[in-house]
Amino acid sequence: MSDFVNLDLDRPRRTGTPEVVYGAGKTAAQIATILYRIHRSGQIALATRVDALKAEAVLAELAAQAPGVAVRHHADAAMLEIRPEAEARAEPVGSVLVISAGTSDLPVAAEAVAVAEALGNRVSLIQDVGIAGLHRILSHLDRLRAARVIIVAAGMDGALPAVVAGLVAAPVIGLPTSVGYGAALNGIAPLLTMLNACAPGVAVVNIDNGFGAAMLADRINRGLP
Amino acid sequence: MSDFVNLDLDRPRRTGTPEVVYGAGKTAAQIATILYRIHRSGQIALATRVDALKAEAVLAELAAQAPGVAVRHHADAAMLEIRPEAEARAEPVGSVLVISAGTSDLPVAAEAVAVAEALGNRVSLIQDVGIAGLHRILSHLDRLRAARVIIVAAGMDGALPAVVAGLVAAPVIGLPTSVGYGAALNGIAPLLTMLNACAPGVAVVNIDNGFGAAMLADRINRGLP
Amino acid sequence: MSDFVNLDLDRPRRTGTPEVVYGAGKTAAQIATILYRIHRSGQIALATRVDALKAEAVLAELAAQAPGVAVRHHADAAMLEIRPEAEARAEPVGSVLVISAGTSDLPVAAEAVAVAEALGNRVSLIQDVGIAGLHRILSHLDRLRAARVIIVAAGMDGALPAVVAGLVAAPVIGLPTSVGYGAALNGIAPLLTMLNACAPGVAVVNIDNGFGAAMLADRINRGLP
Amino acid sequence: MSDFVNLDLDRPRRTGTPEVVYGAGKTAAQIATILYRIHRSGQIALATRVDALKAEAVLAELAAQAPGVAVRHHADAAMLEIRPEAEARAEPVGSVLVISAGTSDLPVAAEAVAVAEALGNRVSLIQDVGIAGLHRILSHLDRLRAARVIIVAAGMDGALPAVVAGLVAAPVIGLPTSVGYGAALNGIAPLLTMLNACAPGVAVVNIDNGFGAAMLADRINRGLP
Amino acid sequence: MSDFVNLDLDRPRRTGTPEVVYGAGKTAAQIATILYRIHRSGQIALATRVDALKAEAVLAELAAQAPGVAVRHHADAAMLEIRPEAEARAEPVGSVLVISAGTSDLPVAAEAVAVAEALGNRVSLIQDVGIAGLHRILSHLDRLRAARVIIVAAGMDGALPAVVAGLVAAPVIGLPTSVGYGAALNGIAPLLTMLNACAPGVAVVNIDNGFGAAMLADRINRGLP
Amino acid sequence: MSDFVNLDLDRPRRTGTPEVVYGAGKTAAQIATILYRIHRSGQIALATRVDALKAEAVLAELAAQAPGVAVRHHADAAMLEIRPEAEARAEPVGSVLVISAGTSDLPVAAEAVAVAEALGNRVSLIQDVGIAGLHRILSHLDRLRAARVIIVAAGMDGALPAVVAGLVAAPVIGLPTSVGYGAALNGIAPLLTMLNACAPGVAVVNIDNGFGAAMLADRINRGLP
Amino acid sequence: MSDFVNLDLDRPRRTGTPEVVYGAGKTAAQIATILYRIHRSGQIALATRVDALKAEAVLAELAAQAPGVAVRHHADAAMLEIRPEAEARAEPVGSVLVISAGTSDLPVAAEAVAVAEALGNRVSLIQDVGIAGLHRILSHLDRLRAARVIIVAAGMDGALPAVVAGLVAAPVIGLPTSVGYGAALNGIAPLLTMLNACAPGVAVVNIDNGFGAAMLADRINRGLP
Amino acid sequence: MSDFVNLDLDRPRRTGTPEVVYGAGKTAAQIATILYRIHRSGQIALATRVDALKAEAVLAELAAQAPGVAVRHHADAAMLEIRPEAEARAEPVGSVLVISAGTSDLPVAAEAVAVAEALGNRVSLIQDVGIAGLHRILSHLDRLRAARVIIVAAGMDGALPAVVAGLVAAPVIGLPTSVGYGAALNGIAPLLTMLNACAPGVAVVNIDNGFGAAMLADRINRGLP
Repeated sequence: MSDFVNLDLDRPRRTGTPEVVYGAGKTAAQIATILYRIHRSGQIALATRVDALKAEAVLAELAAQAPGVAVRHHADAAMLEIRPEAEARAEPVGSVLVISAGTSDLPVAAEAVAVAEALGNRVSLIQDVGIAGLHRILSHLDRLRAARVIIVAAGMDGALPAVVAGLVAAPVIGLPTSVGYGAALNGIAPLLTMLNACAPGVAVVNIDNGFGAAMLADRINRGLP
Repeated sequence: MSDFVNLDLDRPRRTGTPEVVYGAGKTAAQIATILYRIHRSGQIALATRVDALKAEAVLAELAAQAPGVAVRHHADAAMLEIRPEAEARAEPVGSVLVISAGTSDLPVAAEAVAVAEALGNRVSLIQDVGIAGLHRILSHLDRLRAARVIIVAAGMDGALPAVVAGLVAAPVIGLPTSVGYGAALNGIAPLLTMLNACAPGVAVVNIDNGFGAAMLADRINRGLP
Repeated sequence: MSDFVNLDLDRPRRTGTPEVVYGAGKTAAQIATILYRIHRSGQIALATRVDALKAEAVLAELAAQAPGVAVRHHADAAMLEIRPEAEARAEPVGSVLVISAGTSDLPVAAEAVAVAEALGNRVSLIQDVGIAGLHRILSHLDRLRAARVIIVAAGMDGALPAVVAGLVAAPVIGLPTSVGYGAALNGIAPLLTMLNACAPGVAVVNIDNGFGAAMLADRINRGLP
Repeated sequence: MSDFVNLDLDRPRRTGTPEVVYGAGKTAAQIATILYRIHRSGQIALATRVDALKAEAVLAELAAQAPGVAVRHHADAAMLEIRPEAEARAEPVGSVLVISAGTSDLPVAAEAVAVAEALGNRVSLIQDVGIAGLHRILSHLDRLRAARVIIVAAGMDGALPAVVAGLVAAPVIGLPTSVGYGAALNGIAPLLTMLNACAPGVAVVNIDNGFGAAMLADRINRGLP
Repeated sequence: MSDFVNLDLDRPRRTGTPEVVYGAGKTAAQIATILYRIHRSGQIALATRVDALKAEAVLAELAAQAPGVAVRHHADAAMLEIRPEAEARAEPVGSVLVISAGTSDLPVAAEAVAVAEALGNRVSLIQDVGIAGLHRILSHLDRLRAARVIIVAAGMDGALPAVVAGLVAAPVIGLPTSVGYGAALNGIAPLLTMLNACAPGVAVVNIDNGFGAAMLADRINRGLP
Repeated sequence: MSDFVNLDLDRPRRTGTPEVVYGAGKTAAQIATILYRIHRSGQIALATRVDALKAEAVLAELAAQAPGVAVRHHADAAMLEIRPEAEARAEPVGSVLVISAGTSDLPVAAEAVAVAEALGNRVSLIQDVGIAGLHRILSHLDRLRAARVIIVAAGMDGALPAVVAGLVAAPVIGLPTSVGYGAALNGIAPLLTMLNACAPGVAVVNIDNGFGAAMLADRINRGLP
Repeated sequence: MSDFVNLDLDRPRRTGTPEVVYGAGKTAAQIATILYRIHRSGQIALATRVDALKAEAVLAELAAQAPGVAVRHHADAAMLEIRPEAEARAEPVGSVLVISAGTSDLPVAAEAVAVAEALGNRVSLIQDVGIAGLHRILSHLDRLRAARVIIVAAGMDGALPAVVAGLVAAPVIGLPTSVGYGAALNGIAPLLTMLNACAPGVAVVNIDNGFGAAMLADRINRGLP
Repeated sequence: MSDFVNLDLDRPRRTGTPEVVYGAGKTAAQIATILYRIHRSGQIALATRVDALKAEAVLAELAAQAPGVAVRHHADAAMLEIRPEAEARAEPVGSVLVISAGTSDLPVAAEAVAVAEALGNRVSLIQDVGIAGLHRILSHLDRLRAARVIIVAAGMDGALPAVVAGLVAAPVIGLPTSVGYGAALNGIAPLLTMLNACAPGVAVVNIDNGFGAAMLADRINRGLP
């Protein structure tokens, strides 16, 4: 059916999670084809970085190609999802907390939420609690301490992950975003801040990579072996 | 006794681990004083980045200042450790695996091992399994899959963490080292490689920061709450 | 006919290959004119970086200007080609293997394939064999070991060339692509990875420069003198 | 007496503060000569970046050259100071607060303290209150809110100035230090963090430039015109 | 009404100024909602980085949602402003001087002027006085020396703040702009120049961040406590 | 005998060349041990980056540990070599030409020469033919055109590889060196020049990495399969 | 007439050349106004970086505002020029040679030619003589040696200025362009190459700054005092 | 006599100046040998970057090797010079003005002075006239306007060359130095400032490269052809 792709269908066995389609550089037709192939293998099929226009095209393509298949479109996260058909959805496990420092960081945080939930984790979100007003994050101490792993999305100074890591015992995943004025260097500045966090317990993933943060959180939250 | 330091003795309660002394910019006298203060508070006292010469001076200082206290010197890790006195040492928990890509990455890996062990984790080490000879890492698949969290120290191309993350379900902590020719940019190159790992599940810490990798691994391995 | 260009028609004698037109900053009219001039000198005429729209315009221009001339349009590689008229096409020589790490790297790999084939090399392509699933590249060991020179296109962590170089005795040309999240820095990250490859035998060319990789592979594959 | 230097003795009239000698690239003899020339003009004479060895040599040189002159050596700040002879020392004015995030930032903070005090400002210091333990800085809220201008010296993540600026109405001067692991890039990382502070009211000066922070604080604290 | 935002309405009490909406990454509807919420809390409501098109949409939205509210549109500064309703506008205080080095720096300077004025400061502007013709800035010496704080917006070489700081006793806020040829690196070059100003008394804010410069100037100009 | 190292003794079978010891970060004892282990496996044993002092210590160590073994010390190349004992040295094959642009580039070029010769290639060297005097390189056209592969070591502007590639049909390996004034950025500048060579046919290796250039040249020169 | 601009009409007296309008960030109306003001002062009026569309608008504006004034539009150089009315055009003086390395560098070279000619210099142009075919530049040795000052525009490796400087006694102005693949870093790579030119006698100006190269060449060519 | 060097003795004929020895990476013996070879060819022999210790060794070597030859040691410029024997020294020509912004820039300025004088130019020096006190440079207007070419050495903000270029009609050579705090980036900051000089007429050479500035000034000052 398609020879441009060489799917790693063995991945769930090795790593616990399926291959996820990175939609940014692909056509709607390519995305539809790959999603459908993953779906037919019995795995959950996800595509990230599918903007509104392209999502519409993929949905149309799949409606034609695979009429009965239910595709979820997470618009805020720019993600498409097809759940395995015959599967009774299991209860979500553990507790992943996603925090966005500012309103502008929300799209990146939303990708993290959507991916982590799709993989079966229990996820909650705290928004707009940047360090310019410390009382905002401090008012959530109980929720912070109840999480098994915390993802903190932040642009500009990127300081929130270190503040959070100083308050809890769970691992904190710093998720730098490309939000900010010129010297934020499209996310390099918050990335560096997080790598240099003076509070230990902070891991860092790539800029605007909500997907990567969620995949890592999933591994930590599942707690295997 | 000393007013130059403002210890955060409440940290274990909040984060599960004590403050650790960063020895690099401090005098032997300062390190001895702080270690002893932490020790007297009943917590485990650790100092990293204490080179051979300075370690000797700290040991002498402590022998004079606090004669009965047993100080362990981990020479390969450049670390000093004073265990809480009355405590019967608990069994180490979980499983932290530390991997060094090459022989030159060993000192950084050793710091990770020493810190993680001091904090009560069960730790093991695999050495010299860089990707130039893939069979070396592949021969350890069982040990890789038995770990709850894996730290991979690598300089130069920094590619090993991504290879490992593609083989296991556990979270992988990429620990870039400053080993390499000029274009390794003192560790920036492997740091970037790890941030861009095409296999999901990789978190990254600062360059040569074995301490930070261990603190993060400890949080993941303990699996709280 | 045109005074804006000063063609180096002596180049094949000195270097074995003709001048190739870099289409990116040129108008369709300029490209058509230069291609035709090279063609009339009896050499093979190639233009890279000619997007779909511009290619159409060049084809129209050439159809008008030089009616009988057959122009091939390699759409996936964004390349135009006019073969020398009277020449019986020789058998392709040697063996150049092009590998793309991911689907998003394909356009760059395609440019390398098209240029290398146009110059008379025997070329084959392996796609979508990134290191997140090592078994994919390992399943091609025989083809890897049969090649005289291997081009490996990879973005993100750029780790595949080093893995390949550890498996074969042939020279490996690392071809970094600009694919990836923010910290890939538009290809700088995989470029650095390849320069720091811990497996010896890797050479590196410019980012997204499939043309340059092919020209180098051609020199190696011809094996002169 | 010396023709290698062209002092700007008019500076106090224009800017309110004298020229200060940057000792780093100068010989002890040069420093002694310049200090003495400034002193003879009736202004306060300061030299920064004079390490212990060089300070001793300058003191010896001045003892020989200008026997009666009293030179103060601020060892922690690596600064030399000669106060104007006939002047009755005025009361210090306003309130400059200097904060050091960690013990390793103290030498830079000490330079800021020494320079600001020498210029006639009332200065106080808070040490070792990094954001890994927020309660430390929060316990000083009253002192923070009583200051007219606050200098915050921090290396590593450089996040403390933004936290402080969110708590007070006074201007905050971010003073990045070169303390940290590799990705701190010798102070570039905290410098960027401070430039991107999400709390408004933060100004930034050069790395390790305690002198510059103090000169700026002096201008703000004097509140002219 | 809206749960995507978590306003810090306590900020004026702590820092003397309200939260300001950064319009760049937000929709017109979001901006309208947040402005109106701030307005209803009795504080001044400002939104920066609202381009002409978006401003029109926000104005329409507010006209529908909150018919009686007067919204000012500062087109040159891309700013929207709603003043507190019942408040008799106080006299502006102190003296903030904004200087733009060249005509291309004007939009950034205009943002600084509009924000500083909205916060109640007395503000004046001097334009187009770059150092290529020193007589231009020197002809304004009296105005320079009458200001309590000076903001200097400059791109390209970014040298004007240092020149100004050498002429006055007031603090100088360097505001780098992204104006210039390639090696200006979108504002990094003037940012570095200002950080390295050889005349003391210069503080630096982020690139093109007229808002941040004004917020800092406001703190200095108010002169509290 | 030693458990700190995990030699890849299978490498010659896979890649045609043995593992080579990178001496920079290792002790004399470690180097001696590894060299001897490689030697006993019947392969050629090489160690690069062994400075004069360390070389002496390794020689002493080996004289004690393995009395009969002949170790060659290439002082100019900072390399140690132990040839397989029973082997009748084969004739060197092919033709590798090494060129150094300036006298300061010689140590790097010497490493390339020594490694390439040790691996059995026929190697020759042309020195001090930088582009400031083009006649120097042009006077060697015959030797340039007789080589199967050419290594060009150059610092500063790094322009020589492109000039050479425009004159010959053989592949050219650009070997940037860290020679030059400040803006050479320790070799980054010539590295970039070579990556951007306007003449096709240039591959680039890491800064000062004569070893890597030689390993690549060896693969090309052997011309397998 | 316009208060947004503060022209430096004294500049010719001080520096020998008038202020030139940088059109990039300005509206057509602004450009027309400033050009006309300079023209009325009796000086030559030039505007650079005026693209085709904007040029048309400026011409229309000037036709309406100042009907009799003759405006020249140099389309290839994106420049507008109004010569002083009553002036009999003097003979061009000296000899400025402009060289473009490749066809893609022509627009930048054209700006240099147009500005230098407008200022009264005798200018000639050599095109498409990059170092990939050295015979091209060598065939112009006589013209090279007859010039009083040479501007060399080059992107990619930026090596041509050094080659030229090694052949002549005149000063060479390196003019880096933003032409090239990713690692050319938008002109940073050729800029660095030129700063590191191993042949002395090369000066460097900003990326794509044909205007700046011409202004400098004009100063050198006039040879004052 | 020596085969490690390939002198370009034809250079004076082509470029008007001899090859100059860059002493930094060479041994005293190498420098002595090359200087003597140049001297014997009848040209002026210069070596730069010869520190005090190495200079002594070269002088001893030359005293032994070539007893009658007079070698001048310019200690402040770290330069050695042997003038052609039989030549009656010609009058220096033209007027090269060297300016150092601060005392710390003097060693770099001194190299420029020494090289320019050795090549036969009339040279004068103005010291310590940084822009923090503009009156200092303005007091030298007559000397500035009398120069044919001006070299301005400056570290930190590097702003002085632009100020000078706005005052004179002669070409200005910006010579950045590595003097400054951390964000000066070892001279990169002033280098960028000079490349972005808002006053036209500034050329830039490499960091701390007084030699290069002098060689360029020599070409401009001689005014050929």
